[in-house]
Amino acid sequence: MRRLSLWSVDGLPEIRPGDDLAGLIATGLGEPLHDRDVVVVAQKIVSKAEGRVVALSTVTPSERALKMAAESGKDARQLEVVLRETRTIVRWERGVLISETHHGFVCANAGVDRSNAGAADSVVLLPVDPDGSAARLREDLVRRTGCDVAVVVTDTFGRPWREGHVNVAIGMAGLPALLRYMGQYDPQGYELRVTEIAVADEIAAAAELVMGKLDRHPVAIVRGLEPPESTETAHDYVRPKEKDMFR
Amino acid sequence: MRRLSLWSVDGLPEIRPGDDLAGLIATGLGEPLHDRDVVVVAQKIVSKAEGRVVALSTVTPSERALKMAAESGKDARQLEVVLRETRTIVRWERGVLISETHHGFVCANAGVDRSNAGAADSVVLLPVDPDGSAARLREDLVRRTGCDVAVVVTDTFGRPWREGHVNVAIGMAGLPALLRYMGQYDPQGYELRVTEIAVADEIAAAAELVMGKLDRHPVAIVRGLEPPESTETAHDYVRPKEKDMFR
Repeated sequence: MRRLSLWSVDGLPEIRPGDDLAGLIATGLGEPLHDRDVVVVAQKIVSKAEGRVVALSTVTPSERALKMAAESGKDARQLEVVLRETRTIVRWERGVLISETHHGFVCANAGVDRSNAGAADSVVLLPVDPDGSAARLREDLVRRTGCDVAVVVTDTFGRPWREGHVNVAIGMAGLPALLRYMGQYDPQGYELRVTEIAVADEIAAAAELVMGKLDRHPVAIVRGLEPPESTETAHDYVRPKEKDMFR
Repeated sequence: MRRLSLWSVDGLPEIRPGDDLAGLIATGLGEPLHDRDVVVVAQKIVSKAEGRVVALSTVTPSERALKMAAESGKDARQLEVVLRETRTIVRWERGVLISETHHGFVCANAGVDRSNAGAADSVVLLPVDPDGSAARLREDLVRRTGCDVAVVVTDTFGRPWREGHVNVAIGMAGLPALLRYMGQYDPQGYELRVTEIAVADEIAAAAELVMGKLDRHPVAIVRGLEPPESTETAHDYVRPKEKDMFR
Protein backbone atom coordinates (compact mmCIF):
# COMPACT_ATOMS: atom_id res chain seq x y z
CA MET A 1 0.00 0.00 0.00
CA ARG A 2 1.36 3.34 -1.00
CA ARG A 3 0.69 6.17 1.42
CA LEU A 4 1.35 9.87 1.06
CA SER A 5 0.99 12.61 3.59
CA LEU A 6 0.90 16.30 2.87
CA TRP A 7 0.81 19.23 5.22
CA SER A 8 1.25 22.95 5.11
CA VAL A 9 4.05 24.83 6.86
CA ASP A 10 2.54 27.39 9.20
CA GLY A 11 3.54 30.76 10.48
CA LEU A 12 5.72 32.06 7.65
CA PRO A 13 5.96 35.84 7.84
CA GLU A 14 5.09 38.13 4.91
CA ILE A 15 8.03 37.57 2.53
CA ARG A 16 10.09 40.59 1.42
CA PRO A 17 12.80 41.06 -1.20
CA GLY A 18 16.06 39.49 -0.11
CA ASP A 19 14.48 37.24 2.52
CA ASP A 20 16.21 33.92 3.12
CA LEU A 21 13.37 31.66 2.06
CA ALA A 22 15.12 28.37 2.90
CA GLY A 23 15.92 29.70 6.37
CA LEU A 24 12.34 30.77 7.00
CA ILE A 25 10.98 27.45 5.73
CA ALA A 26 13.48 25.40 7.76
CA THR A 27 12.58 27.38 10.89
CA GLY A 28 8.85 27.07 10.26
CA LEU A 29 8.83 23.27 9.86
CA GLY A 30 6.73 21.70 12.56
CA GLU A 31 8.67 18.46 12.20
CA PRO A 32 11.99 17.50 10.62
CA LEU A 33 12.24 16.81 6.91
CA HIS A 34 13.12 13.37 5.58
CA ASP A 35 15.21 12.44 2.56
CA ARG A 36 13.07 12.48 -0.61
CA ASP A 37 10.36 14.68 0.91
CA VAL A 38 9.09 17.15 -1.67
CA VAL A 39 8.94 20.78 -0.54
CA VAL A 40 6.28 22.62 -2.54
CA VAL A 41 6.49 26.42 -2.59
CA ALA A 42 4.00 28.87 -4.07
CA GLN A 43 5.54 31.07 -6.76
CA LYS A 44 4.39 34.22 -5.06
CA ILE A 45 6.76 33.98 -2.10
CA VAL A 46 9.64 32.92 -4.35
CA SER A 47 9.01 35.95 -6.55
CA LYS A 48 8.74 38.28 -3.55
CA ALA A 49 11.99 36.98 -2.03
CA GLU A 50 13.63 37.55 -5.43
CA GLY A 51 12.30 41.10 -5.65
CA ARG A 52 10.01 40.36 -8.61
CA VAL A 53 7.48 42.98 -7.45
CA VAL A 54 6.74 46.08 -9.53
CA ALA A 55 5.06 49.21 -8.19
CA LEU A 56 2.63 50.30 -10.89
CA SER A 57 3.45 53.96 -10.14
CA THR A 58 6.89 53.36 -11.71
CA VAL A 59 5.48 51.96 -14.99
CA THR A 60 4.95 54.03 -18.15
CA PRO A 61 2.57 52.20 -20.45
CA SER A 62 3.49 51.77 -24.11
CA GLU A 63 1.13 52.70 -26.98
CA ARG A 64 0.16 49.06 -27.25
CA ALA A 65 -0.70 48.78 -23.54
CA LEU A 66 -2.74 52.01 -23.74
CA LYS A 67 -4.66 50.68 -26.73
CA MET A 68 -5.38 47.37 -24.97
CA ALA A 69 -6.44 49.26 -21.84
CA ALA A 70 -8.87 51.34 -23.89
CA GLU A 71 -10.31 48.16 -25.45
CA SER A 72 -10.73 46.36 -22.16
CA GLY A 73 -11.06 48.88 -19.34
CA LYS A 74 -7.98 47.34 -17.68
CA ASP A 75 -5.10 49.16 -16.01
CA ALA A 76 -2.65 50.22 -18.76
CA ARG A 77 0.34 50.04 -16.41
CA GLN A 78 -0.50 46.48 -15.39
CA LEU A 79 -1.00 45.53 -19.07
CA GLU A 80 2.41 47.04 -19.81
CA VAL A 81 4.03 44.82 -17.18
CA VAL A 82 2.21 41.79 -18.62
CA LEU A 83 3.40 42.63 -22.15
CA ARG A 84 7.00 42.87 -20.93
CA GLU A 85 6.65 39.36 -19.46
CA THR A 86 5.09 38.04 -22.68
CA ARG A 87 6.99 36.41 -25.55
CA THR A 88 3.87 35.86 -27.67
CA ILE A 89 0.23 36.81 -27.19
CA VAL A 90 -1.66 33.54 -27.66
CA ARG A 91 -5.13 35.12 -27.30
CA TRP A 92 -6.49 38.58 -26.56
CA GLU A 93 -10.27 38.37 -26.47
CA ARG A 94 -12.99 39.83 -24.29
CA GLY A 95 -10.41 41.42 -22.00
CA VAL A 96 -8.66 38.09 -21.37
CA LEU A 97 -4.97 37.91 -22.26
CA ILE A 98 -3.39 34.48 -22.67
CA SER A 99 0.39 34.80 -22.98
CA GLU A 100 3.28 32.61 -23.79
CA THR A 101 5.81 33.76 -21.21
CA HIS A 102 9.54 34.08 -21.85
CA HIS A 103 9.84 30.69 -20.08
CA GLY A 104 7.45 29.14 -22.62
CA PHE A 105 4.49 28.70 -20.24
CA VAL A 106 1.07 29.54 -21.61
CA CYS A 107 -1.09 31.24 -18.98
CA ALA A 108 -3.29 34.24 -18.30
CA ASN A 109 -1.51 37.60 -18.01
CA ALA A 110 1.95 36.02 -18.23
CA GLY A 111 1.53 35.07 -14.57
CA VAL A 112 1.51 38.72 -13.44
CA ASP A 113 -0.80 39.08 -10.47
CA ARG A 114 -1.97 41.94 -8.31
CA SER A 115 -3.43 39.99 -5.39
CA ASN A 116 -1.28 39.21 -2.35
CA ALA A 117 1.46 41.47 -3.71
CA GLY A 118 2.26 42.61 -0.19
CA ALA A 119 2.08 46.29 -1.17
CA ALA A 120 -0.68 48.50 -2.54
CA ASP A 121 -0.66 49.19 -6.30
CA SER A 122 1.98 46.56 -6.95
CA VAL A 123 2.08 43.41 -9.04
CA VAL A 124 4.07 40.22 -8.63
CA LEU A 125 5.84 38.68 -11.64
CA LEU A 126 6.88 35.06 -12.12
CA PRO A 127 10.52 34.34 -11.20
CA VAL A 128 12.93 35.00 -14.08
CA ASP A 129 14.07 31.36 -13.93
CA PRO A 130 11.74 29.26 -11.74
CA ASP A 131 13.81 26.09 -12.26
CA GLY A 132 16.87 28.02 -11.08
CA SER A 133 14.87 29.31 -8.10
CA ALA A 134 13.88 25.73 -7.25
CA ALA A 135 17.47 24.50 -7.61
CA ARG A 136 18.83 27.24 -5.32
CA LEU A 137 16.10 26.69 -2.76
CA ARG A 138 16.78 22.97 -2.84
CA GLU A 139 20.51 23.50 -2.33
CA ASP A 140 19.85 25.83 0.60
CA LEU A 141 17.35 23.44 2.18
CA VAL A 142 19.70 20.47 1.79
CA ARG A 143 22.51 22.46 3.39
CA ARG A 144 20.38 23.64 6.30
CA THR A 145 18.48 20.41 7.02
CA GLY A 146 20.90 17.74 5.85
CA CYS A 147 18.01 16.10 3.98
CA ASP A 148 18.03 15.34 0.30
CA VAL A 149 14.68 16.95 -0.49
CA ALA A 150 13.21 17.83 -3.88
CA VAL A 151 11.57 21.21 -4.55
CA VAL A 152 8.59 22.22 -6.69
CA VAL A 153 7.65 25.87 -7.30
CA THR A 154 3.98 26.23 -8.24
CA ASP A 155 1.48 28.63 -9.70
CA THR A 156 -2.24 28.33 -10.33
CA PHE A 157 -3.13 28.25 -14.02
CA GLY A 158 -6.39 28.06 -15.94
CA ARG A 159 -6.71 25.64 -18.83
CA PRO A 160 -8.69 25.24 -22.02
CA TRP A 161 -11.90 23.21 -22.10
CA ARG A 162 -12.26 22.80 -18.34
CA GLU A 163 -13.53 25.36 -15.86
CA GLY A 164 -11.47 26.14 -12.78
CA HIS A 165 -7.80 26.62 -12.06
CA VAL A 166 -5.29 24.01 -10.93
CA ASN A 167 -1.90 24.34 -9.33
CA VAL A 168 0.97 23.34 -11.64
CA ALA A 169 4.76 23.13 -11.43
CA ILE A 170 6.59 26.10 -12.97
CA GLY A 171 9.95 25.24 -11.42
CA MET A 172 11.43 22.09 -9.95
CA ALA A 173 14.62 20.45 -8.77
CA GLY A 174 15.54 16.93 -7.79
CA LEU A 175 12.57 14.95 -9.13
CA PRO A 176 11.20 13.92 -12.55
CA ALA A 177 8.74 16.06 -14.51
CA LEU A 178 7.38 13.07 -16.39
CA LEU A 179 7.01 9.47 -15.29
CA ARG A 180 7.24 7.39 -18.42
CA TYR A 181 5.22 4.24 -18.98
CA MET A 182 6.36 3.99 -22.56
CA GLY A 183 7.34 0.48 -23.49
CA GLN A 184 5.49 -0.95 -20.50
CA TYR A 185 2.68 -3.41 -21.07
CA ASP A 186 -0.57 -4.31 -19.41
CA PRO A 187 -1.42 -7.94 -18.56
CA GLN A 188 -2.91 -8.47 -22.06
CA GLY A 189 0.27 -7.27 -23.69
CA TYR A 190 -0.94 -3.87 -24.88
CA GLU A 191 1.45 -0.98 -24.53
CA LEU A 192 0.02 1.56 -22.13
CA ARG A 193 -1.68 4.46 -23.86
CA VAL A 194 -0.84 7.06 -21.24
CA THR A 195 2.86 7.13 -21.63
CA GLU A 196 3.88 10.13 -19.55
CA ILE A 197 2.40 11.24 -16.25
CA ALA A 198 3.14 14.83 -15.25
CA VAL A 199 4.14 13.89 -11.73
CA ALA A 200 5.37 17.31 -10.53
CA ASP A 201 2.14 18.88 -11.80
CA GLU A 202 0.21 16.28 -9.82
CA ILE A 203 2.33 17.06 -6.76
CA ALA A 204 1.56 20.77 -7.25
CA ALA A 205 -2.16 20.01 -7.49
CA ALA A 206 -2.05 17.82 -4.39
CA ALA A 207 -0.19 20.50 -2.44
CA GLU A 208 -2.76 23.16 -3.31
CA LEU A 209 -5.30 21.14 -1.33
CA VAL A 210 -3.40 21.99 1.86
CA MET A 211 -2.03 25.37 0.78
CA GLY A 212 -5.26 27.20 -0.06
CA LYS A 213 -5.29 30.74 -1.37
CA LEU A 214 -6.32 33.00 1.45
CA ASP A 215 -4.83 31.16 4.36
CA ARG A 216 -1.24 32.18 3.84
CA HIS A 217 0.10 28.65 3.63
CA PRO A 218 2.49 29.07 0.74
CA VAL A 219 4.61 26.00 1.60
CA ALA A 220 3.63 22.34 1.79
CA ILE A 221 5.55 19.14 2.42
CA VAL A 222 4.73 15.93 0.54
CA ARG A 223 6.04 12.78 2.20
CA GLY A 224 5.89 9.17 1.04
CA LEU A 225 6.18 9.62 -2.70
CA GLU A 226 9.96 9.44 -2.60
CA PRO A 227 10.43 10.39 -6.24
CA PRO A 228 13.60 9.23 -7.95
CA GLU A 229 16.39 11.79 -8.38
CA SER A 230 16.22 13.52 -11.74
CA THR A 231 17.70 16.47 -13.53
CA GLU A 232 14.44 17.20 -15.36
CA THR A 233 12.95 20.65 -14.96
CA ALA A 234 9.59 22.33 -15.47
CA HIS A 235 10.92 23.30 -18.87
CA ASP A 236 10.25 19.66 -19.80
CA TYR A 237 6.54 20.53 -19.58
CA VAL A 238 6.80 23.18 -22.28
CA ARG A 239 5.35 21.68 -25.45
CA PRO A 240 7.12 23.09 -28.49
CA LYS A 241 4.76 25.33 -30.44
CA GLU A 242 5.12 23.26 -33.60
CA LYS A 243 3.93 20.16 -31.71
CA ASP A 244 0.95 21.95 -30.14
CA MET A 245 -2.43 21.65 -31.85
CA PHE A 246 -3.95 24.40 -29.71
CA ARG A 247 -2.01 27.61 -30.29
CA MET B 1 -1.83 23.05 10.02
CA ARG B 2 -3.80 21.21 7.42
CA ARG B 3 -2.83 17.61 6.84
CA LEU B 4 -3.99 15.18 4.20
CA SER B 5 -3.27 11.52 3.85
CA LEU B 6 -3.82 9.42 0.78
CA TRP B 7 -3.41 5.74 0.26
CA SER B 8 -4.31 3.13 -2.30
CA VAL B 9 -6.69 0.26 -1.67
CA ASP B 10 -4.91 -2.99 -2.34
CA GLY B 11 -5.91 -6.40 -3.55
CA LEU B 12 -8.93 -5.61 -5.73
CA PRO B 13 -9.55 -8.43 -8.19
CA GLU B 14 -9.83 -7.90 -11.95
CA ILE B 15 -13.22 -6.18 -12.29
CA ARG B 16 -15.86 -7.78 -14.55
CA PRO B 17 -19.24 -6.61 -15.86
CA GLY B 18 -21.85 -6.65 -13.12
CA ASP B 19 -19.34 -6.71 -10.26
CA ASP B 20 -20.42 -4.99 -7.06
CA LEU B 21 -17.74 -2.31 -6.96
CA ALA B 22 -18.80 -0.80 -3.63
CA GLY B 23 -18.74 -4.23 -2.04
CA LEU B 24 -15.29 -5.02 -3.39
CA ILE B 25 -13.94 -1.63 -2.27
CA ALA B 26 -15.53 -1.89 1.17
CA THR B 27 -14.03 -5.36 1.60
CA GLY B 28 -10.60 -4.28 0.38
CA LEU B 29 -10.25 -1.31 2.73
CA GLY B 30 -7.30 -1.83 5.03
CA GLU B 31 -8.85 0.47 7.61
CA PRO B 32 -12.36 1.84 8.18
CA LEU B 33 -13.54 4.90 6.28
CA HIS B 34 -14.35 8.16 8.06
CA ASP B 35 -17.06 10.69 7.31
CA ARG B 36 -15.92 13.10 4.60
CA ASP B 37 -13.19 10.84 3.29
CA VAL B 38 -12.99 11.03 -0.49
CA VAL B 39 -12.97 7.70 -2.34
CA VAL B 40 -11.21 8.11 -5.68
CA VAL B 41 -11.88 5.44 -8.31
CA ALA B 42 -10.21 5.05 -11.70
CA GLN B 43 -12.69 5.20 -14.57
CA LYS B 44 -11.50 1.91 -15.98
CA ILE B 45 -12.89 -0.25 -13.20
CA VAL B 46 -16.15 1.71 -13.13
CA SER B 47 -16.51 1.18 -16.87
CA LYS B 48 -15.70 -2.50 -16.60
CA ALA B 49 -18.21 -3.04 -13.79
CA GLU B 50 -20.80 -1.27 -15.95
CA GLY B 51 -20.02 -3.46 -18.95
CA ARG B 52 -18.58 -0.60 -21.05
CA VAL B 53 -16.16 -2.95 -22.80
CA VAL B 54 -16.39 -3.60 -26.55
CA ALA B 55 -14.80 -6.56 -28.32
CA LEU B 56 -13.36 -5.16 -31.55
CA SER B 57 -14.38 -8.35 -33.41
CA THR B 58 -18.02 -7.22 -33.04
CA VAL B 59 -17.43 -3.78 -34.63
CA THR B 60 -18.08 -2.98 -38.28
CA PRO B 61 -16.22 0.21 -39.18
CA SER B 62 -18.09 2.96 -41.04
CA GLU B 63 -16.78 4.61 -44.21
CA ARG B 64 -15.47 7.46 -42.13
CA ALA B 65 -13.58 5.17 -39.76
CA LEU B 66 -12.10 3.28 -42.71
CA LYS B 67 -10.95 6.55 -44.26
CA MET B 68 -9.36 7.73 -41.01
CA ALA B 69 -7.70 4.33 -40.58
CA ALA B 70 -6.22 4.59 -44.07
CA GLU B 71 -4.90 8.09 -43.27
CA SER B 72 -3.35 7.12 -39.96
CA GLY B 73 -2.57 3.41 -39.98
CA LYS B 74 -4.82 2.98 -36.94
CA ASP B 75 -7.31 0.18 -36.31
CA ALA B 76 -10.54 1.05 -38.16
CA ARG B 77 -12.69 -0.83 -35.65
CA GLN B 78 -11.19 1.08 -32.72
CA LEU B 79 -11.65 4.36 -34.62
CA GLU B 80 -15.28 3.41 -35.21
CA VAL B 81 -15.82 2.95 -31.46
CA VAL B 82 -14.12 6.31 -30.81
CA LEU B 83 -16.36 8.03 -33.39
CA ARG B 84 -19.47 6.59 -31.75
CA GLU B 85 -18.30 8.08 -28.42
CA THR B 86 -17.57 11.46 -30.05
CA ARG B 87 -19.99 14.37 -30.26
CA THR B 88 -17.55 16.63 -32.17
CA ILE B 89 -14.08 16.06 -33.52
CA VAL B 90 -12.01 18.92 -32.08
CA ARG B 91 -8.80 17.96 -33.93
CA TRP B 92 -7.70 15.17 -36.24
CA GLU B 93 -4.05 15.72 -37.08
CA ARG B 94 -1.02 13.47 -37.45
CA GLY B 95 -3.05 10.46 -36.33
CA VAL B 96 -4.12 12.15 -33.09
CA LEU B 97 -7.86 12.46 -32.52
CA ILE B 98 -9.09 14.98 -29.94
CA SER B 99 -12.80 14.52 -29.31
CA GLU B 100 -15.52 16.27 -27.48
CA THR B 101 -17.34 13.36 -25.89
CA HIS B 102 -21.10 13.14 -25.48
CA HIS B 103 -20.49 14.26 -21.87
CA GLY B 104 -18.75 17.42 -23.11
CA PHE B 105 -15.21 16.42 -22.08
CA VAL B 106 -12.43 17.18 -24.53
CA CYS B 107 -9.83 14.42 -24.60
CA ALA B 108 -7.91 12.07 -26.86
CA ASN B 109 -9.92 9.27 -28.52
CA ALA B 110 -13.08 10.15 -26.58
CA GLY B 111 -11.55 8.32 -23.64
CA VAL B 112 -11.64 4.95 -25.45
CA ASP B 113 -8.64 2.90 -24.39
CA ARG B 114 -7.27 -0.49 -25.29
CA SER B 115 -4.83 -0.98 -22.42
CA ASN B 116 -5.91 -2.81 -19.28
CA ALA B 117 -9.17 -3.79 -20.98
CA GLY B 118 -9.10 -7.15 -19.24
CA ALA B 119 -9.63 -9.02 -22.52
CA ALA B 120 -7.67 -9.31 -25.73
CA ASP B 121 -8.82 -7.17 -28.69
CA SER B 122 -11.20 -5.19 -26.52
CA VAL B 123 -11.50 -1.51 -25.67
CA VAL B 124 -12.91 0.21 -22.62
CA LEU B 125 -15.26 3.18 -23.02
CA LEU B 126 -15.95 5.96 -20.51
CA PRO B 127 -19.06 5.39 -18.39
CA VAL B 128 -22.25 6.65 -20.06
CA ASP B 129 -22.87 8.98 -17.10
CA PRO B 130 -19.79 9.21 -14.84
CA ASP B 131 -21.53 11.56 -12.39
CA GLY B 132 -24.33 9.04 -12.10
CA SER B 133 -21.75 6.27 -11.60
CA ALA B 134 -20.14 8.31 -8.82
CA ALA B 135 -23.51 9.01 -7.19
CA ARG B 136 -24.49 5.33 -7.22
CA LEU B 137 -21.12 4.24 -5.90
CA ARG B 138 -21.34 6.84 -3.16
CA GLU B 139 -24.80 5.66 -2.16
CA ASP B 140 -23.65 2.05 -2.05
CA LEU B 141 -20.54 2.93 -0.02
CA VAL B 142 -22.53 5.03 2.46
CA ARG B 143 -25.00 2.19 2.90
CA ARG B 144 -22.28 -0.43 3.40
CA THR B 145 -19.90 1.55 5.60
CA GLY B 146 -22.22 4.00 7.36
CA CYS B 147 -19.78 6.78 6.46
CA ASP B 148 -20.74 9.90 4.58
CA VAL B 149 -17.97 9.70 2.00
CA ALA B 150 -17.61 11.61 -1.27
CA VAL B 151 -16.65 9.88 -4.53
CA VAL B 152 -14.53 11.03 -7.48
CA VAL B 153 -14.23 8.99 -10.70
CA THR B 154 -11.05 9.82 -12.60
CA ASP B 155 -9.37 9.46 -15.96
CA THR B 156 -5.96 10.55 -17.19
CA PHE B 157 -6.13 13.29 -19.82
CA GLY B 158 -3.54 15.16 -21.86
CA ARG B 159 -3.78 18.92 -22.14
CA PRO B 160 -2.75 21.65 -24.56
CA TRP B 161 0.53 23.53 -24.07
CA ARG B 162 1.99 21.23 -21.42
CA GLU B 163 3.58 17.83 -21.94
CA GLY B 164 2.40 14.91 -19.87
CA HIS B 165 -0.95 13.62 -18.72
CA VAL B 166 -2.72 14.37 -15.43
CA ASN B 167 -5.53 12.62 -13.66
CA VAL B 168 -8.80 14.60 -13.65
CA ALA B 169 -12.32 14.15 -12.32
CA ILE B 170 -14.84 12.91 -14.89
CA GLY B 171 -17.51 12.05 -12.32
CA MET B 172 -18.13 13.06 -8.73
CA ALA B 173 -20.64 13.01 -5.92
CA GLY B 174 -20.85 14.72 -2.55
CA LEU B 175 -18.14 17.39 -2.89
CA PRO B 176 -17.68 20.66 -4.80
CA ALA B 177 -16.13 20.81 -8.27
CA LEU B 178 -15.01 24.40 -7.81
CA LEU B 179 -13.92 26.23 -4.66
CA ARG B 180 -14.79 29.86 -5.20
CA TYR B 181 -12.64 32.70 -3.93
CA MET B 182 -14.73 35.24 -5.77
CA GLY B 183 -15.54 38.24 -3.62
CA GLN B 184 -12.73 37.39 -1.21
CA TYR B 185 -9.92 39.86 -0.68
CA ASP B 186 -6.25 39.71 0.12
CA PRO B 187 -4.77 41.78 2.99
CA GLN B 188 -4.26 44.78 0.64
CA GLY B 189 -7.90 44.70 -0.37
CA TYR B 190 -7.48 43.26 -3.89
CA GLU B 191 -10.00 40.73 -4.98
CA LEU B 192 -8.27 37.42 -5.62
CA ARG B 193 -7.47 36.78 -9.27
CA VAL B 194 -7.85 33.03 -9.13
CA THR B 195 -11.49 32.79 -8.39
CA GLU B 196 -12.22 29.11 -8.81
CA ILE B 197 -10.02 26.20 -7.84
CA ALA B 198 -10.87 22.87 -9.48
CA VAL B 199 -10.73 20.95 -6.23
CA ALA B 200 -11.96 17.56 -7.48
CA ASP B 201 -9.43 17.71 -10.33
CA GLU B 202 -6.72 18.40 -7.75
CA ILE B 203 -7.97 15.45 -5.68
CA ALA B 204 -7.82 13.27 -8.81
CA ALA B 205 -4.25 14.42 -9.50
CA ALA B 206 -3.22 13.78 -5.90
CA ALA B 207 -4.76 10.31 -5.96
CA GLU B 208 -2.87 9.35 -9.11
CA LEU B 209 0.35 9.69 -7.11
CA VAL B 210 -0.67 6.62 -5.07
CA MET B 211 -2.68 4.84 -7.77
CA GLY B 212 -0.07 4.54 -10.49
CA LYS B 213 -0.80 2.96 -13.86
CA LEU B 214 0.69 -0.47 -13.88
CA ASP B 215 0.31 -1.42 -10.28
CA ARG B 216 -3.39 -2.19 -10.31
CA HIS B 217 -4.28 0.29 -7.59
CA PRO B 218 -7.44 1.73 -9.12
CA VAL B 219 -8.85 3.03 -5.80
CA ALA B 220 -7.43 5.58 -3.39
CA ILE B 221 -8.70 7.18 -0.20
CA VAL B 222 -8.08 10.87 0.59
CA ARG B 223 -8.48 11.77 4.25
CA GLY B 224 -8.23 15.13 5.95
CA LEU B 225 -9.61 17.41 3.28
CA GLU B 226 -13.16 17.03 4.53
CA PRO B 227 -14.75 18.83 1.61
CA PRO B 228 -18.11 20.47 2.18
CA GLU B 229 -21.19 18.65 0.90
CA SER B 230 -22.18 19.79 -2.56
CA THR B 231 -24.45 18.79 -5.40
CA GLU B 232 -21.94 19.93 -8.03
CA THR B 233 -20.81 17.40 -10.60
CA ALA B 234 -17.96 16.98 -13.05
CA HIS B 235 -20.30 18.51 -15.60
CA ASP B 236 -19.49 21.81 -13.85
CA TYR B 237 -15.99 21.47 -15.36
CA VAL B 238 -17.32 21.45 -18.92
CA ARG B 239 -16.65 24.90 -20.34
CA PRO B 240 -19.37 25.80 -22.82
CA LYS B 241 -17.95 25.89 -26.34
CA GLU B 242 -18.94 29.54 -26.85
CA LYS B 243 -16.89 30.54 -23.79
CA ASP B 244 -13.84 28.52 -24.85
CA MET B 245 -11.06 30.33 -26.72
CA PHE B 246 -9.33 27.07 -27.67
CA ARG B 247 -11.74 24.98 -29.75
